[in-house]
Amino acid sequence: MNISFPQLFPITRKLHPENQEAPVHFLQNRVTPTDYFFKRNHFAYPQWTTSLFSLIIYGEVHVPLAVAYRQLLFMQVKTLAVVLECAGNQRAFYAPKTYGEQWTNGAVSFGCWTGVPLRDVLQLCGLTAGAKEVVFEGHDVGKHLPSGKQTAYKRSLSLKQALHPDVLIAWQLNGQPLPFAHGGPLRLIVPHWYAMASVKWLKSIAIISGEFQGPFQTEDYVYYPATDSGQQPFPVTTINVNSVIQWPLDFAELKKGVHIIRGIAWTGQGVVTNVELSFNQGKSWTSATLSGFADKPDGYSWKTWSFSWRAEQTGEYTILSRAHDSHGRQQPQEAFWNRKGYGYNAVNKVRVNIV
Amino acid sequence: MNISFPQLFPITRKLHPENQEAPVHFLQNRVTPTDYFFKRNHFAYPQWTTSLFSLIIYGEVHVPLAVAYRQLLFMQVKTLAVVLECAGNQRAFYAPKTYGEQWTNGAVSFGCWTGVPLRDVLQLCGLTAGAKEVVFEGHDVGKHLPSGKQTAYKRSLSLKQALHPDVLIAWQLNGQPLPFAHGGPLRLIVPHWYAMASVKWLKSIAIISGEFQGPFQTEDYVYYPATDSGQQPFPVTTINVNSVIQWPLDFAELKKGVHIIRGIAWTGQGVVTNVELSFNQGKSWTSATLSGFADKPDGYSWKTWSFSWRAEQTGEYTILSRAHDSHGRQQPQEAFWNRKGYGYNAVNKVRVNIV
Repeated sequence: MNISFPQLFPITRKLHPENQEAPVHFLQNRVTPTDYFFKRNHFAYPQWTTSLFSLIIYGEVHVPLAVAYRQLLFMQVKTLAVVLECAGNQRAFYAPKTYGEQWTNGAVSFGCWTGVPLRDVLQLCGLTAGAKEVVFEGHDVGKHLPSGKQTAYKRSLSLKQALHPDVLIAWQLNGQPLPFAHGGPLRLIVPHWYAMASVKWLKSIAIISGEFQGPFQTEDYVYYPATDSGQQPFPVTTINVNSVIQWPLDFAELKKGVHIIRGIAWTGQGVVTNVELSFNQGKSWTSATLSGFADKPDGYSWKTWSFSWRAEQTGEYTILSRAHDSHGRQQPQEAFWNRKGYGYNAVNKVRVNIV
Repeated sequence: MNISFPQLFPITRKLHPENQEAPVHFLQNRVTPTDYFFKRNHFAYPQWTTSLFSLIIYGEVHVPLAVAYRQLLFMQVKTLAVVLECAGNQRAFYAPKTYGEQWTNGAVSFGCWTGVPLRDVLQLCGLTAGAKEVVFEGHDVGKHLPSGKQTAYKRSLSLKQALHPDVLIAWQLNGQPLPFAHGGPLRLIVPHWYAMASVKWLKSIAIISGEFQGPFQTEDYVYYPATDSGQQPFPVTTINVNSVIQWPLDFAELKKGVHIIRGIAWTGQGVVTNVELSFNQGKSWTSATLSGFADKPDGYSWKTWSFSWRAEQTGEYTILSRAHDSHGRQQPQEAFWNRKGYGYNAVNKVRVNIV
């Protein structure tokens, strides 16, 4: 290991399979450098085979296709700046706590993804009248817990969702070939959705006439609001509006004076329109300054924000951040508790001591 | 960054100055590989100068000395396997929480340190009758918070402590030159003490006739048991007996069956004699199997331990670990709360769900 100072690393949550958070508090780059992009794996990495470089499309299509990586390169490409967030991000903050990876704030990253719209590829096949859902299968295979089923990682989208022009089959991240560790050579990117929808190591796309029932569709990535039953479940879909205070760190000690509070905010419906801070437990809020590059009105960026805070008095302060989006949503004071701990987006909280 | 899978990294707690935890749950090596050894800095890294390679000894001595690195190499060396633990390790677990670095379990590491006994070096100088304390000064300099004092990092030991034959001036860690990031070229190693005593980038050693009053001696690294006053303070010295459950991880989901629970245990008084586990909130305890290499009866190793657990029933379990040492100490059910959050050593707790 080549040591230069200081050095920043991803945060290991699990080694087998490899699950890592982005060190999100320490990243000030516009996009998340690929080395720090969060990793969430359900199974061990797939075998490296040449079959990773092609894609089978079959089912409710007029012409089943095997599409090679090199063929995709000749199509019209699209580059989108997209936030990916694990549905379990911030699970560690639930009270009562829930089982699963104890992600803190860093199971979220922001990258520039290049590929072709899925719908342009599906168009080559032609869909039959019976087409209802699109099932994406990854090359990663293993035993699903708790069901114990041996399965590939598979997820479906409705036809309407799948045909959105910004759903990509991507092969580049931040201008470089998509690393194997992030689902390369070919990965689905579904903007605005939690990242379980962005299937890695894309192996096949099945167009089906029914409703897909795989365990990652109907058991995991489902909100179960009841503590003691599976009642009233509903599926995890788009990202909840959210923000993180990057600096200061929680339970930091700071000198009296002016401090630049800074952070990030993102959403899965529309765009972030405002980030507010509160220094009195949410009684009143004051807007932070949004920055970052100009996003399209319907873009998928995260926004950076900052606020100049004059800490005049010594003592303990609690700083809350709350993002709003263009769909009228805002972060709640308390997160919506659900048994598997998905979709946490309570106002972000940092406590500091001014000394 | 060269990617092989899976990859393990230190955990960044702060970037400026660089503070990192060891990824202690994922390390199964006998000693902590140097790349993963925890880092706790008070200030920015010192300037790299040739003066790092010599050491001034002055004060209550007959012959003040400037000792060069290359001179030390000709003396009789000693290698000791020593646990270093930051006094703030596990601070994040206090309730109520305390300010400062929010270390979880990994501000502790175990290395083989090679150097010469400090007392052999002091003997070259000869101590006067007035000698009472030994003050160690590092090359690292900055502003101490909250006092605002500009100071080098300095700590003292009593003459008796300093003359213990296992207090080393060390220049090797795990058989390699001690990296600059860990205090090289020359670092003090004080076995059994919390690591604030093991002064890095050793610049000078002052023998004094009084009591040293620097801020890292009399303000920081002091236990303040009162929530609202500085009353009844007492100094942080040796490491409290402690243990960590490395596997399973907290809030893991596991299948029914036999699981090998494993962990580490260490102490700053004598040696670890027993590690017990409880599956019923501490009502009853059962001994784990201690392993690791044969430590001297007065050694400074940590011990690894394991326990074969048959999880017959689905449901939630809490696993507690409790270490005992040869001085008759054991980990308490609740940690001793103190305002700066030092010396946490409550029984270690992991909650798992058997599915």
